[in-house]
Amino acid sequence: MSEREESIQSESPENRVTTCESFHGTIEFIGKRWMGIIVYHLLNGPKRYHELLSEIDSISDRLLTERLKELEAQGLVIKKVSKIELRKVEYELTELGSELEPIIAAVLVWVKRNGCKAYKR
Amino acid sequence: MSEREESIQSESPENRVTTCESFHGTIEFIGKRWMGIIVYHLLNGPKRYHELLSEIDSISDRLLTERLKELEAQGLVIKKVSKIELRKVEYELTELGSELEPIIAAVLVWVKRNGCKAYKR
Repeated sequence: MSEREESIQSESPENRVTTCESFHGTIEFIGKRWMGIIVYHLLNGPKRYHELLSEIDSISDRLLTERLKELEAQGLVIKKVSKIELRKVEYELTELGSELEPIIAAVLVWVKRNGCKAYKR
Repeated sequence: MSEREESIQSESPENRVTTCESFHGTIEFIGKRWMGIIVYHLLNGPKRYHELLSEIDSISDRLLTERLKELEAQGLVIKKVSKIELRKVEYELTELGSELEPIIAAVLVWVKRNGCKAYKR
């Protein structure tokens, strides 16, 4: 069994509410607190845990860990252990995870265009 | 600093929860429970409250009301009262709200392509 399969099967029933099976589930999953920003930071390539923690302003240890586990459980992120440096673990978007890029990009376009308008009128 | 980074870093802590000013706020706002699906249903044109209620399977009265108020507060939806039929009220996306369409479309593309994979492999 691949690492990915293993991580998907390890999901608990309560994770099912937030699945990516539907439009509904996907948009709510990606919109969960910190989720979008974590995916955004991984779009540039694999990152170590502490790199994500320092790059994402104000995220807590607990929530970063939790979100990374959820991303793994959905097959959007895999945890890679280096064969050379055994303690080096990196988080990387899977192909499925990388395909979230157009969603992230569309949000960025909207924000760039409208972000300030949408609150101050 | 790239433009993309700038828009992400410009958020202030108090705005994070609901505003659309930042990437963070926008993706979380659109991903709130039922929010995306309401916007999706309004993309086809103005709708009356009861139409939305019957089209969106399982949404509660309370949450539909709450989300429409939040969309109005962000300038994404306006409530139109017909001049002819005074009791006819419709909810309509503003220009700002209509510009969320590419985000919704990107989610739909991902779901169509990957929705089933993301859980069943």
